[in-house]
Amino acid sequence: MHTLLILAARRAGEYRDLIDAARLPDLAIVTAATVADAAPHAGADLVLGEPSLVATVLPKMPGVRWVQSTWAGVEPPLEPALRRDYVLTNACGVFGPLMTEFVVGYMLAHERRILEKHASQQAGRWDPTPPGTLRGKTMGLIGVGSIGAALARTAKHFGMRVKGYTRTSEDCRDVDAYFHGDDRLAFAAGLDYLVSIAPNTAGTRRLVDAALLAALPPRAVFINPGRGSIVDEPALAEALAAGRLAGAVLDVFEQEPLPPDHIFWRTPNVLITSHTAALSFPADIAPVFIENYKRWIAGEPLRCRVDFERGY
Amino acid sequence: MHTLLILAARRAGEYRDLIDAARLPDLAIVTAATVADAAPHAGADLVLGEPSLVATVLPKMPGVRWVQSTWAGVEPPLEPALRRDYVLTNACGVFGPLMTEFVVGYMLAHERRILEKHASQQAGRWDPTPPGTLRGKTMGLIGVGSIGAALARTAKHFGMRVKGYTRTSEDCRDVDAYFHGDDRLAFAAGLDYLVSIAPNTAGTRRLVDAALLAALPPRAVFINPGRGSIVDEPALAEALAAGRLAGAVLDVFEQEPLPPDHIFWRTPNVLITSHTAALSFPADIAPVFIENYKRWIAGEPLRCRVDFERGY
Repeated sequence: MHTLLILAARRAGEYRDLIDAARLPDLAIVTAATVADAAPHAGADLVLGEPSLVATVLPKMPGVRWVQSTWAGVEPPLEPALRRDYVLTNACGVFGPLMTEFVVGYMLAHERRILEKHASQQAGRWDPTPPGTLRGKTMGLIGVGSIGAALARTAKHFGMRVKGYTRTSEDCRDVDAYFHGDDRLAFAAGLDYLVSIAPNTAGTRRLVDAALLAALPPRAVFINPGRGSIVDEPALAEALAAGRLAGAVLDVFEQEPLPPDHIFWRTPNVLITSHTAALSFPADIAPVFIENYKRWIAGEPLRCRVDFERGY
Repeated sequence: MHTLLILAARRAGEYRDLIDAARLPDLAIVTAATVADAAPHAGADLVLGEPSLVATVLPKMPGVRWVQSTWAGVEPPLEPALRRDYVLTNACGVFGPLMTEFVVGYMLAHERRILEKHASQQAGRWDPTPPGTLRGKTMGLIGVGSIGAALARTAKHFGMRVKGYTRTSEDCRDVDAYFHGDDRLAFAAGLDYLVSIAPNTAGTRRLVDAALLAALPPRAVFINPGRGSIVDEPALAEALAAGRLAGAVLDVFEQEPLPPDHIFWRTPNVLITSHTAALSFPADIAPVFIENYKRWIAGEPLRCRVDFERGY
């Protein structure tokens, strides 16, 4: 018999219903919305939960053998001081379509001048300014995992060229050219769109700095639904204010919610989307747990396993 | 020897350069930006031009045997009083990608709440309102020619369901269900997006009327990059004002530019895009002429031939 603790601030009940409906064998389920609620269930051997909460309860749950994160990014339990004697899996293969809709939606909004047309309309002005097109444009992806692959496939569907910047991998056939390590300025050259979907690791921290921003053409738009830590925020604000970059669509930040006095609220051509690019919906995440639970009891390797050293 | 009159208000020179570069045999080219400019070239046997200008010069050019339109819609030369003793071809197969970017751009803008997020940002407000997704939504297409097929293919790429309303054709495999004639209310039922890309013909006039609008769910958004004549404009304004429809993205109107006192300027949840959904760029249209000219001199059937009776 296994005991699963579902630890989620708002939607623990929804997760429980979805997992109950799968009628998994040998599984008891308990739920908690807070760390305090979780205390009576310290004997559970499995956890499905939000990484920030999970990281706090882990030290008090010595019997935990497997944690399924409800998010793609799992920074909190990766803190070096925390235990690593369990299997950690994240929500992989889920966010590709949502992230793709976010990125393509904002690329098309830029090309079609959706905000500018709306401003013209509010001024009562018929505005025949011609739109641009994604066809023939170049997108540069920082990070090409399952999300990047979904995005690259859609970019090719719209006739775009795709460049990829990765640690070492080169296995997505929709990427036309790969770059690694010191090649980041060559990667940035000629991009119409720079999109970061990389995890927060030592290798990605401040990758989008003044030098990389200077290597982008002034027509480029930076779209960041990944992690705020990848950007040198003051350098980005400066490049936008100086018109050295056409725009930025920012979903994630060093500090969230973005503080009221942050320069991005006053930086021209910034769009702030308040960390909504790809939300974790129980209907998407529960199947990842269910599939992995079947593998767990069958003794098979789990999907979406996180490498504690690599950080994703 | 053939003589081609290029008749285009602004871009005749651009067309000439593109066609010159193709080094077509036995072809002399003359250009005109206005009907008056065209008078000295009344002896031309071929015309490439804007349908509104072409319709005016046709009666004075008895030697014309083939007209290639630079637009997809060719209403002016279809006037019943005008001659029909020549071959008329339109700009087909060109606007699919542009129209698709327009429609998908506005569908994603709706799902991702791009205008609402922007308004929150302008108010300095962090706005974590969850977005929607195209996945699982249903799009209904009025008109499934080459543009509709391109749009249907992209809708399937995003995981949408596609319903098609056509005169008789059922040959696009990306359409999940077809409707014709009197079935228009069954077609409208359950749609998240109603998209009209139908030509202006007797059969499409006022097709989107109060009855069809009432058959749409209140969550539906109407997107019209086709022809203004398909809509009963007062009925649409009333449905939007009453909240019986979530929104409308209107590129075309009965009268363009939209008159300053038109109700749509004050109707809630209308977006006006000023007839820019799919512009005719010489780089896209010239190849259609070049391909057809090669067929013309070889005595082969031309592509994109318009049926005068059918109207497209």
